[in-house]
Amino acid sequence: MFNNISIIGCGLIGSSILRAVQKKNLAKEINVFDHSKEVTGFLKKENICSNVFSDIRECVKNSDLIIIATPLSSYKEIILSIKEHLKKNAILTDTGSVKKEVIKIIHNINLKDVFWIPSHPIAGTEESGPKAGYPEMFEDRWCIISPPENCIEEPIKNLKEFWQSIGSKVKVMSAEKHDKILSLTSHLPHAIAYNIVRTVINVEDKLKQEVIQYSAGGLRDFTRIAASNPLMWKDIFLDNSENILKGIDDFAEKLQELKKAISDKNGDKLFQIFNSTKEIRKEIIKAGQDTSKPNFGRKKD
Amino acid sequence: MFNNISIIGCGLIGSSILRAVQKKNLAKEINVFDHSKEVTGFLKKENICSNVFSDIRECVKNSDLIIIATPLSSYKEIILSIKEHLKKNAILTDTGSVKKEVIKIIHNINLKDVFWIPSHPIAGTEESGPKAGYPEMFEDRWCIISPPENCIEEPIKNLKEFWQSIGSKVKVMSAEKHDKILSLTSHLPHAIAYNIVRTVINVEDKLKQEVIQYSAGGLRDFTRIAASNPLMWKDIFLDNSENILKGIDDFAEKLQELKKAISDKNGDKLFQIFNSTKEIRKEIIKAGQDTSKPNFGRKKD
Repeated sequence: MFNNISIIGCGLIGSSILRAVQKKNLAKEINVFDHSKEVTGFLKKENICSNVFSDIRECVKNSDLIIIATPLSSYKEIILSIKEHLKKNAILTDTGSVKKEVIKIIHNINLKDVFWIPSHPIAGTEESGPKAGYPEMFEDRWCIISPPENCIEEPIKNLKEFWQSIGSKVKVMSAEKHDKILSLTSHLPHAIAYNIVRTVINVEDKLKQEVIQYSAGGLRDFTRIAASNPLMWKDIFLDNSENILKGIDDFAEKLQELKKAISDKNGDKLFQIFNSTKEIRKEIIKAGQDTSKPNFGRKKD
Repeated sequence: MFNNISIIGCGLIGSSILRAVQKKNLAKEINVFDHSKEVTGFLKKENICSNVFSDIRECVKNSDLIIIATPLSSYKEIILSIKEHLKKNAILTDTGSVKKEVIKIIHNINLKDVFWIPSHPIAGTEESGPKAGYPEMFEDRWCIISPPENCIEEPIKNLKEFWQSIGSKVKVMSAEKHDKILSLTSHLPHAIAYNIVRTVINVEDKLKQEVIQYSAGGLRDFTRIAASNPLMWKDIFLDNSENILKGIDDFAEKLQELKKAISDKNGDKLFQIFNSTKEIRKEIIKAGQDTSKPNFGRKKD
């Protein structure tokens, strides 16, 4: 579909795109740039892409599709480095979890003759780095794209088809709405997961080993999320701060309600709180967003 | 090992004990009492126990081991009903997640000629009821027992061996310490999971369908815990309120710290927060408490 695809940043997400493109034979050439020698060394050793570049300008200059898959805080520098070297009518996209700030950056840079269409594949694991990537990562997962209002149809259609060809279901949504919804479904849950793990492991150091030992009672679920890439998450929290702060305030208010019900020994209220969340999982399973198997179907290794 | 075992309350946990005892042939007779006709009807139909009783006194009168596996709020009534009908030197145990209140109840009732030894098998799923039980539930899971200080060794040894024979690893711990540790590893995480699901599904009703649709970004992990039995959890929160309230206060304090770092756009502090929790999952996996497979190894059904 594309003659030449460039992937900038080849960690968990970038290397999974790379593997999917290779596996499905979706490009004649696939170029990779990553500033880490460890990453490029790994890619060369594994022999999973046509070209590994050490000069980002060389990497992108013949590409029809350029995908930025780095933490959000690197975008500005990357876009400034490549802006004069992009092919006319190339599609520039990304994989970031927040859209507001990057759209501001692009606006200020004033890109010419290039179609900028942000993407967010909602996929991943708690792992990081190119070793952890795999080609099926995007299968049956949503990818949200947020084209600027003035963008013409053809590049949007081509980008949609690209994500679909690696298995994604694509949804077009405004950047503003994307940032709001993701603050609820992803960013706030991550904030809370980090916060509970941090609370529990710090409370009393002498209990730490026992907390680990008996974590199967519930805590272990949270530690999965809290093991995610800290650099990526720092950037997300800076870029989507407004929505996340609103979410934290709502959460804190509900927590005080729960606290009051416990202090008051109000059994009816507690039952009502715990019962109100029971149905949502069924809806999530019905929507194909999780397994119906108890305990996520996990078995011991 | 035991001639006659009684299980009072045959939901997820009780029916799993029942199935494990049957499968491993650990008792000559196994009796069940449950106040729900739906449950007893199911047990008779499935033919998985020797005797289903409608009179709790008849159920326990010949038993050497009696296991209460009901929500905590039923304990008092159950123990009052059976106390005059227990066999001399029988072992009375339970499966409850909090120990403080039940020990108070037992103390006030003044049981005679019976060995009361509380148990807590740390096992379960988000499902409820006897259909959801399975015999392997306790394999490689911890079971904490909290014998009273004056209890003699033999019944402790026998109860230990019972849990071990259905696959558990047994740890002896004071009731007070048990309630503290479980408040951190299980009760606080449940409070937080309920709270985030309640926050997110209520924030804006018009977004609810989209929140469900994109829940794979993190939220779905929390909905598993928040789908657990609300009646059981209400009782846990009433009985372990002191420890849980302390946990909520610590959590709320840490959350304000996180909120401040976001408001201040303090990237270093955010990175430090997100990085501090990264190692704990490795320790949990090393302790055999979770799978090392990404995303809990879940695959779509």
